Amino acid sequence: MATTYQHSPTQIAMIGGGSWATAIVKMLCENNVYVHWWMRSQTDIAHIIHYRHNPSYLSGVEINLEKVNPTYDLRKSIAEAEIVVLAVPAAFIADVLKRLAIDDLKNKVVVSAIKGMIPIENSLITKYVMRKFNVPASHLLAIAGPCHAEEVALEKQSYLTIGGQDIDKAQQFANLLKGRYIKASVVTDIDGVEYCAVMKNVIALACGIAHGLGYGDNFHAVLVSNAMQEIRRFLDVIEPHPRDLNGSAYLGDLLVTTYSQFSRNRTFGSMIGRGYSVKSAQLEMKMIAEGYYAVKIIYEINKKYKVNMPITKAVYHILYEKALPTAEFQLLKDVLK
Amino acid sequence: MATTYQHSPTQIAMIGGGSWATAIVKMLCENNVYVHWWMRSQTDIAHIIHYRHNPSYLSGVEINLEKVNPTYDLRKSIAEAEIVVLAVPAAFIADVLKRLAIDDLKNKVVVSAIKGMIPIENSLITKYVMRKFNVPASHLLAIAGPCHAEEVALEKQSYLTIGGQDIDKAQQFANLLKGRYIKASVVTDIDGVEYCAVMKNVIALACGIAHGLGYGDNFHAVLVSNAMQEIRRFLDVIEPHPRDLNGSAYLGDLLVTTYSQFSRNRTFGSMIGRGYSVKSAQLEMKMIAEGYYAVKIIYEINKKYKVNMPITKAVYHILYEKALPTAEFQLLKDVLK
Repeated sequence: MATTYQHSPTQIAMIGGGSWATAIVKMLCENNVYVHWWMRSQTDIAHIIHYRHNPSYLSGVEINLEKVNPTYDLRKSIAEAEIVVLAVPAAFIADVLKRLAIDDLKNKVVVSAIKGMIPIENSLITKYVMRKFNVPASHLLAIAGPCHAEEVALEKQSYLTIGGQDIDKAQQFANLLKGRYIKASVVTDIDGVEYCAVMKNVIALACGIAHGLGYGDNFHAVLVSNAMQEIRRFLDVIEPHPRDLNGSAYLGDLLVTTYSQFSRNRTFGSMIGRGYSVKSAQLEMKMIAEGYYAVKIIYEINKKYKVNMPITKAVYHILYEKALPTAEFQLLKDVLK
Repeated sequence: MATTYQHSPTQIAMIGGGSWATAIVKMLCENNVYVHWWMRSQTDIAHIIHYRHNPSYLSGVEINLEKVNPTYDLRKSIAEAEIVVLAVPAAFIADVLKRLAIDDLKNKVVVSAIKGMIPIENSLITKYVMRKFNVPASHLLAIAGPCHAEEVALEKQSYLTIGGQDIDKAQQFANLLKGRYIKASVVTDIDGVEYCAVMKNVIALACGIAHGLGYGDNFHAVLVSNAMQEIRRFLDVIEPHPRDLNGSAYLGDLLVTTYSQFSRNRTFGSMIGRGYSVKSAQLEMKMIAEGYYAVKIIYEINKKYKVNMPITKAVYHILYEKALPTAEFQLLKDVLK
């Protein structure tokens, strides 16, 4: 009989209690890990400890409390971990990180699972962590899709891409996610996959606006094709790196978002296209679509680089300069091909 | 007051009476053309002459009889035309062309609007016309999408790409299609756009099978991303040409087909995935999905080139070698990433 060795589990801090965080906790727990799961809501923590389910997100997923310690103690959860996964909305991550001392992330591998950027600073999440905490590039990773958290909950076959300059570290983390219904591959293009995860939300907004204005499937396909070209032009200028944009982490992620009926960005865009003001669409949706912040950040970054980005420009004009969707898309449709 | 000059209309023969033919006739008639419209069904011709609508396809489209002459006389319709547009299903085009003498296509520009290839000969449509009728490469064009005919009927903004080695001829034909809701651009990569139009149907079959087997949106996005890489590998070997595969004629066409709920290929694939035999799925659908022929042709061509094409191979094994969809997709999911 073969002897099987069980290494001691990898200690992970999961920062955030949303649906993507819950999906990642589920994937990790099916491997040899122990998760210190920090979230803001004490009620949710109490519920998870009592009922073994996250009451607010993916509530069907059972949480294995032998492998998960839900906690309100941010610094302690990180102190005990080798790997720190950031999974709070981009708009709040700077506030969460402010509660840490620089040394708290010393020698940790920090993984961004956030599909957004730091507003005002207009910074990628991993670059922000690098700058504020002196975490070296070799210790930074990003998780890219295409991956609806809801389908992970349903154990539907899904694929992840881990970006990291240190490909061995990326592979080690990928191995902690892989499982019966999860495949995870690695790329060194961490900046590219982070940018793509952000820009896809801008494109999803554009698709939503087009839908709200009455454009059809033919236009949608052309919009997405042109968006791929727009993303390539931008990345080639601001983060040149050998990359296959038709890879799952780029094209795949764009597709799963822009063709999803449930994307908040698409829904928000659709309301704008149907004539809602930005304010009233936001009130109606109760939460703000990530693309709303993303388009401002990408637009502002591009002021310096002046890459030809007609789709981003149109969405920016509509959301921030009160341009009429009909008029902007009239202009946009003439430059697409 | 400015004088406007009206050139005499361009004479066009439209060969075929299906929905794509009807959509192209509609686009052409909004420009300065005269269409000799050949179709097989005398009943449909009589109906169009009487009621100004094609009874069998896109019956909402009004046919302008001042610009269209529906006819059963194939050779006469071609004799009177400068441009011949082929728009019958790929499986029947060789039979139709057999009725012509070689000289019938002399000095004509021949445009393929067919999204398929000649079975047995495994030939692109335009290459077949070149071979059988000595039509020079400079006189051959292909119309590529992404373009559901149904959305043209609804006058939804759509985009076409005209492929042709002679870019001026391609542009002249593009100008005959352009209009209020149609944009048409040109590329020299005629073989590439023809192949892509064929291969997308194979991928739509694969997406349908995946859907029938219960795979979700995450997998669909990965399948389409990997398909783009598979198409690129194939084209780079068999038709090398500088091309941007993220252009509308390539990626866009793939998207509009694989994400359409109404694609015959996707529906057929979905039935196969749910356990129908090929025969019973074909009986149920009453017509054969183009991808059924396409996968055999592409698979056979690739026997010589041995390009790595796991998606095409899986679909071929399922449709022609009675492989179990579950087992084939179990293998396929492990090579995708």
